[in-house]
Amino acid sequence: MSQRKVAVYRKEHFNAAHRLHNPQLSDAENARLFGKCNNPSYHGHNYELIVKVTGEVDEKTGYVIDTKILSDLVKVHVLEVFDHRNLNLDTDYFKNLNPTAENIVMVIYDILRKQIDSRYDLKLMLYETERNFVEFPVG
Amino acid sequence: MSQRKVAVYRKEHFNAAHRLHNPQLSDAENARLFGKCNNPSYHGHNYELIVKVTGEVDEKTGYVIDTKILSDLVKVHVLEVFDHRNLNLDTDYFKNLNPTAENIVMVIYDILRKQIDSRYDLKLMLYETERNFVEFPVG
Amino acid sequence: MSQRKVAVYRKEHFNAAHRLHNPQLSDAENARLFGKCNNPSYHGHNYELIVKVTGEVDEKTGYVIDTKILSDLVKVHVLEVFDHRNLNLDTDYFKNLNPTAENIVMVIYDILRKQIDSRYDLKLMLYETERNFVEFPVG
Amino acid sequence: MSQRKVAVYRKEHFNAAHRLHNPQLSDAENARLFGKCNNPSYHGHNYELIVKVTGEVDEKTGYVIDTKILSDLVKVHVLEVFDHRNLNLDTDYFKNLNPTAENIVMVIYDILRKQIDSRYDLKLMLYETERNFVEFPVG
Amino acid sequence: MSQRKVAVYRKEHFNAAHRLHNPQLSDAENARLFGKCNNPSYHGHNYELIVKVTGEVDEKTGYVIDTKILSDLVKVHVLEVFDHRNLNLDTDYFKNLNPTAENIVMVIYDILRKQIDSRYDLKLMLYETERNFVEFPVG
Amino acid sequence: MSQRKVAVYRKEHFNAAHRLHNPQLSDAENARLFGKCNNPSYHGHNYELIVKVTGEVDEKTGYVIDTKILSDLVKVHVLEVFDHRNLNLDTDYFKNLNPTAENIVMVIYDILRKQIDSRYDLKLMLYETERNFVEFPVG
Repeated sequence: MSQRKVAVYRKEHFNAAHRLHNPQLSDAENARLFGKCNNPSYHGHNYELIVKVTGEVDEKTGYVIDTKILSDLVKVHVLEVFDHRNLNLDTDYFKNLNPTAENIVMVIYDILRKQIDSRYDLKLMLYETERNFVEFPVG
Repeated sequence: MSQRKVAVYRKEHFNAAHRLHNPQLSDAENARLFGKCNNPSYHGHNYELIVKVTGEVDEKTGYVIDTKILSDLVKVHVLEVFDHRNLNLDTDYFKNLNPTAENIVMVIYDILRKQIDSRYDLKLMLYETERNFVEFPVG
Repeated sequence: MSQRKVAVYRKEHFNAAHRLHNPQLSDAENARLFGKCNNPSYHGHNYELIVKVTGEVDEKTGYVIDTKILSDLVKVHVLEVFDHRNLNLDTDYFKNLNPTAENIVMVIYDILRKQIDSRYDLKLMLYETERNFVEFPVG
Repeated sequence: MSQRKVAVYRKEHFNAAHRLHNPQLSDAENARLFGKCNNPSYHGHNYELIVKVTGEVDEKTGYVIDTKILSDLVKVHVLEVFDHRNLNLDTDYFKNLNPTAENIVMVIYDILRKQIDSRYDLKLMLYETERNFVEFPVG
Repeated sequence: MSQRKVAVYRKEHFNAAHRLHNPQLSDAENARLFGKCNNPSYHGHNYELIVKVTGEVDEKTGYVIDTKILSDLVKVHVLEVFDHRNLNLDTDYFKNLNPTAENIVMVIYDILRKQIDSRYDLKLMLYETERNFVEFPVG
Repeated sequence: MSQRKVAVYRKEHFNAAHRLHNPQLSDAENARLFGKCNNPSYHGHNYELIVKVTGEVDEKTGYVIDTKILSDLVKVHVLEVFDHRNLNLDTDYFKNLNPTAENIVMVIYDILRKQIDSRYDLKLMLYETERNFVEFPVG
C-alpha cells in the first residue's frame, strides 16, 4: 500500500477579539465598509481551524503524520499566538493588515507552511462562525 | 498579499416540501423508483445550502466578497423562492423536473451563477438531511 | 447499585410536510397568525425526536431499557406513521389539530406513553429546526 | 388538549469581546484568578443563547408562544445590546460586574424576564464555547 | 446578585473499548441479551461526558466554579482512568459490573462526587453515541 | 440538464475497538510510536464514514445514484464487517496492517471500489473523532 496519498485533518480552536479596520482608510470609509464589525471596542469569535496535511502513508507507522505532532505544532505556532488575544492589538500580523477571515487564514498558512515539511501539501479551513468560513489555498 | 485566492463559504437554510416524481413516467414506475419519497401528499426537509465563492482577496477590504452581500443575494434569489414552499407546486423550476437533491442544487447554481460576478468561481453544497448531501459543480 | 434511577435518551428522526392552519379560523386569520407557515401547498422539516425514559437500572442487564427496544418502539409507532408523510393530510391526528411543534410533541407523547411501561417516566424533545424545539411534559 | 404545558426553545447567537476582570481587585489578583481570560486587550466568543419559555398551549394557535415573536424580543432586547460589542466597554451591565458566563446569563435573564409575560416560566442556557456553558435559573 | 444559583456545564471526552457482558450469566444468555454488543473481542466508542455543577455565584470571581479547575478534576479522576482503555479489562470498576452507559455514568458520578465540594449539586450526561445517551442522577 | 456531473454524499457510522500496533516492530518501538493508542487491551471509536460518489445525473431518476442503494452497499460490505468489531482481531484486513485511520480508509476504499460501477468516481472521508479525520483518495 505504499505510494498512496491520504489527507489527514486536525481541528483546533481559539477564541480571539478583533475589529475589521483598514488603517489606510478614513473612519467613515471603514464604518461604511465594515458596519458593526468595525466597532472600535472590538468584538470576538470562537475560531475553528482545520489543518489538512496530504502526503504518502509511512509504511512503518501507517501515518501520513502523527496528529499528536500536528496538533502540537498548531498549539505552539498558532494557538499560543492567537488564543485569548486581540488580533489587532496583541499580534504583529494585523498591525497593518485587516483581520478578516481571508487575511487570518493566509497569515496562519504562512506560519504553518514553514513548520511542516515541504513533502506535505497543506490546506486550511478557518470557521469564524458556523455560517461564515474560508479556505486557503484553493485548487 | 495580492494575487492570492481564497474560498469564502456562507451557510443558509430553507424549509420546503417536495415529492420525488417524474411526470413522464407512470405512477407505478414512480412508486417503484422513489418509494416513500414519491408520497403524493409530499414530505419535507430542512435544507442547508453552503455557497462557496472563490476569488482574489481585495487589498482594500481584505474580503474576497462581503459575506453580508453574499447572504443577501442568497436570501433574495434563493430563499425567497424556496423557503416555506412546496418545490413541486410553488416553483416553476420543478413543474417538469424531479426535485431530487441533484436537480435542486443544479437549479440553485443556475440562479446564483447569474448573480455573482464571473471573476468568481462558484460551488454549492446542499444538505437534504445530515446524512444525504450533494455538491455541484464537481472538480 | 439497585434503587438508583437513570434517564436513558434515544434520538430518532423523520421528514414530513406540514402546514400551520386552524380549520376553525378564517383563511385571513390563519394567514395573519401563521404567515409563510400557512402556505396552502405545505412546507416541511427534518424533525429530530429525543425520547427520554427514566427508571431504575436492572441489575441483570445494567439497562434501564434496551435502547434497541426503545428505538424499535419509536420506529413502529411514530416513524412509520409520520416519516415521509404530510402531517395534515396523511394522519388522523392533525385533521382537526394544527400541527405546531407543541401539538406534534403532545400527540407523539400520547402514542408512546401507551407503549412504554408505566414504571418508566417519559419525556420528549422535538426539534423542528436546529433553532426551534419543544419539550413535553415539563417539570 | 388544553391545560397541558409545553416548553418552547429558541436558539440565537451573538459575537462579542470581553475580558474577565473584577475592578475591585488588584491587577495581580485578577491575573491570578482569570489567567489568559484577563488579557487587558480582550478576547471574544461566539455566544449561543437558548431561551426556554414554558406555558400552556393556546387552543387557537397551537402555540405556547410564537417563536417569531420570541426571536424578535431577543433580537431587540439582547442581540442589539450585545452583538458585535465589547461587553466590558460598550454596555452598562458590565461596567462594575465581571462578564463571566454566569453573570452574563443572569443579566440577560433580568432583561428578558421583563419582556415576557409572567404567566410564562423562563430559563436560559448560554454557551460560551461548545465545551463551556451555563444555565439560569436552576431547579 | 449574590444568592442566585447558576448551573455550569463542562464537556469532556474519552475513547474506550468495552463489551456488554454480565459475568454472572451464561454465554448464551449474554449473547441473547446484548447481541453484537456482547462481542468477546470488544468494540468501542467516543464517549462525551457533560459535567453539570450547580451552586451560588461567588461575588469575587463571578464564577460558580472555575471551569479550568473542573476540567482538570475530570481529567485526573476520569479521563486518566478511562481514556484509551478497555473498560472491562483495564479498570477495577467493571470487573464485575456490566459497562452499560447506565453503569458507567453512575461509576463516574461516584468518582466525581468525592472530588467536588458538597455545597455543589452534581449531575452528569454521558453520550455513548450521538443517538444514545444517559443522565444521572435524575430529578 | 444532461451531461452535468454532481457529487452525492452519504454518511454512515460504525463503532469499533482497535489498537495501533505494527507487528513487525518491537513492543518498545510500538509503545514509543503510538503511546496510549498502543494499549494492548484496545480502545475504541465511533467512526463516521462519508462516501462521495460523483457521476452524471440520470435524466429518468434525477439521481446520480440512489442513496438508499448506496447506503445498503455500505451496510453490507463495510458496516457488517467493521461495526461492533475489534479491527485487529475480528477482521482479516488488519491482521498484518496497523489500523490507523489512514489504513482503514484505504481498506474501505478497496472494498467499496469493487462494489460501485467504474463510471462513478469514489472518495471517502473517515472521522475517528470530531477532531481527527482522513480523506482518500486525494486530488
